[in-house]
Amino acid sequence: MPEFRRDPITGRLIIIAAGRSKRPRQHGARNAQAHGELCPFCAGNEAMTPPEVWALRENDSHGDKPGWTVRVVPNKYPALENHGALTAKKDAFYESLNGLGVHEVIIESPDHEINMGALRMDQCTAILRAYRARMRALGDDSRWRYLLLYKNHGKRAGATLEHVHSQLIALPVVPQSAADELNRAEKHYDSTGHCISCEIVQCEVERGERLVSQSEKFIALCPFAPRFGYEAWILPKNHVAAFEQSTDEDITALAQFLKDFILRLNRALDQPAFNYVICSKPPHQSATRYYHWRIEILPQIARAAGFEWGSGMYMNAVAPEGAARLLRDAAL
Amino acid sequence: MPEFRRDPITGRLIIIAAGRSKRPRQHGARNAQAHGELCPFCAGNEAMTPPEVWALRENDSHGDKPGWTVRVVPNKYPALENHGALTAKKDAFYESLNGLGVHEVIIESPDHEINMGALRMDQCTAILRAYRARMRALGDDSRWRYLLLYKNHGKRAGATLEHVHSQLIALPVVPQSAADELNRAEKHYDSTGHCISCEIVQCEVERGERLVSQSEKFIALCPFAPRFGYEAWILPKNHVAAFEQSTDEDITALAQFLKDFILRLNRALDQPAFNYVICSKPPHQSATRYYHWRIEILPQIARAAGFEWGSGMYMNAVAPEGAARLLRDAAL
Repeated sequence: MPEFRRDPITGRLIIIAAGRSKRPRQHGARNAQAHGELCPFCAGNEAMTPPEVWALRENDSHGDKPGWTVRVVPNKYPALENHGALTAKKDAFYESLNGLGVHEVIIESPDHEINMGALRMDQCTAILRAYRARMRALGDDSRWRYLLLYKNHGKRAGATLEHVHSQLIALPVVPQSAADELNRAEKHYDSTGHCISCEIVQCEVERGERLVSQSEKFIALCPFAPRFGYEAWILPKNHVAAFEQSTDEDITALAQFLKDFILRLNRALDQPAFNYVICSKPPHQSATRYYHWRIEILPQIARAAGFEWGSGMYMNAVAPEGAARLLRDAAL
Repeated sequence: MPEFRRDPITGRLIIIAAGRSKRPRQHGARNAQAHGELCPFCAGNEAMTPPEVWALRENDSHGDKPGWTVRVVPNKYPALENHGALTAKKDAFYESLNGLGVHEVIIESPDHEINMGALRMDQCTAILRAYRARMRALGDDSRWRYLLLYKNHGKRAGATLEHVHSQLIALPVVPQSAADELNRAEKHYDSTGHCISCEIVQCEVERGERLVSQSEKFIALCPFAPRFGYEAWILPKNHVAAFEQSTDEDITALAQFLKDFILRLNRALDQPAFNYVICSKPPHQSATRYYHWRIEILPQIARAAGFEWGSGMYMNAVAPEGAARLLRDAAL
C-alpha cells in the first residue's frame, strides 16, 4: 500500500508508492518497449489495462472492447489506492497516512496519436467532457479533498507512454501550496470584494503585453512570474470556481481554445514536451466566490535543478513578455 | 538586469534572468559543443571565464593563469547581479525586486574530470575548503540573507557543462521553504529543548534501517520522506548550525565521507545524474541552537512531472528503507 509521509525537518508531505517502480518504460529508459510493440492504450488492447471506469462509446459497443472515443481506467501502477479508511500513524518523529486516494488514466484517443494538436476538434471536446465527468464523480465523494488533473506529454515531461493520455488523482488532503493559494485569494476577496484572478484577466487584456490569445470565453496569457520558460495559463474570462462547473458550451469553446494553444506551442517551440495541470477549487470548500480555475501549461525545455530543489524558488531564463510575443505570433 | 517577481495568485517568488538564455549548451541541447571543443573550466582556458574571485593556487602562480587546484569565478550568465541596492517595485498586482545577488561557479578541478568520485582526496578537501571560504566571505556581507551552494551533475540534473563544478548563489531574501523549516526547527526546540536534526541523527543510528554509512563525525541516511528515489542526506553528528562553521578537521573528514558516498552512488546506480545542495543556517539569523546543516543528495532518475508541478508534493517510487539498503551494500 502506498503511503503519505511527512518529513519532520522540512515539513514536506510526499507519497511513497513503491509499486510504481514496476512500471515498464516505453519512453527512453532502460526497459524501453520496442517500436511497434503493443501499446496498452490503443483500441483493441483494452485487456492490457484494468477495467474501465468511464468511457464515451458507440451505443452498441461493450465495456472494455473497441468502440470508444475516450476511455478512463484506473492506473495500473497507482500512486494511491482506494481501499480502507484514512488512518494517521505517528512513530517517534515520523508522521504518515496510508496512501488512500484514486489514480486514473484518461486515454484520449483510440488511435495511437502522440500529440493532442493532431486530434480532431470533436475528439478534443470528448477529452474535456471526460475530465469533467470524472472530476464531478470523484468530487461527489466526501473523502476526496483535492483533485488534480494533469498531463505529462513527452519524455522530458515525465511521460512513460507516448499514446495521448492524462491522469487524474484524488487526494484525501489539500496540498499545502493549494491551501496557501486559497488563503491568498480569500484575503484578497475579503479586502477588495473582487476575485484576484478576475482582476488579473481584466488587467492583462488591457495591457496586452503578456496576452497570448483570447476568445469570447477564454484567455491565454503568460503569467507575471512563471516558473518555466513559455509557461502559459488558460483561464475562463468570467468567474467560475471549478473546472467541473463548466457547461457543455464552455467545454466546446475550451476544446477549440486549448487545441489552438497547443498548435501555437508546437509551432513556436518545435513540438516541446510539456505538462499541464488543472487548478480548480477543491471539492467541499466554500471558496466559490474567490477561487477561479485555470489550466497551467508548463513546457519542459530548461530543467529544474539544484537551485530549484534547494531553494524551492524557480529561475527562468525567458521573460513572460517575450514568451507571450512568440506564442501570439505563432497563430496559424 | 535580472528580477525577482512574485505571482499575485500563487504567491510564488521566482527569478527572471533573461541573460541566461544566451548560455551555450555543451550537454545535449541544440547547440551542443563538439567533443574536444575548448572547455572554459580547464586549466589554460582561464581567459574564457570572468576573472577569479578566489583560488587555491601554487605560491608562485598568478591569478587567472594555470597553477590552481580549485578556482571560483563569477557565473558568466548570472541569475542575479551584484550592483545597486535592493529596490521593491509594485505595479498594480505585480510585486518585483531587482535581481540583486551573487552567482559564482566553483571549478572543482584544473583537469577535465567529469565525476567527483574520480578526484583524489586532497582535491575533494580543497573543494570543500573553497565552499567554506566563499560562504564565509558572502555571509559577512549583511545584504545576503541566504546562501545556496548546489551542484548539478549530469544532463538530467540540469548541468550544461560536464567539467566538475558547483555553484553558489547569495540571495537578498530567505526563500519561503527555508523560512518554514527554520520555524519548524525553532518550535521543536522551544517545546523540547532539543535540535530536531540531532534527535533524528540519534534515532536513525539506533534504528539503522535508513542508515547508509557513518564515520566519527558524519552520518549518511535516506530521509523518512524523500522527494526523489535514492535521495540521501549527510549530516554532522554533533550539532553545527552552518556549514561554514566547519573546522579544518571537519572539512577533511567530510571530504572523505562525501567521496565515499559518491562512489556508493556511482556503484549502486551506475553513475547517475544528481544534484546536491547544502542546507545551512542563513547568515544573520540567530538560529544557531536549533538549525543543523546538511547536504541533500538528490539523484535524478525519475522526473518531477505534472503531479509535482500541480500539487507541490512529490511522488517517489523508491522507499527510503530499500534505497538505504542498496547504498549500504554498495560499500567498496
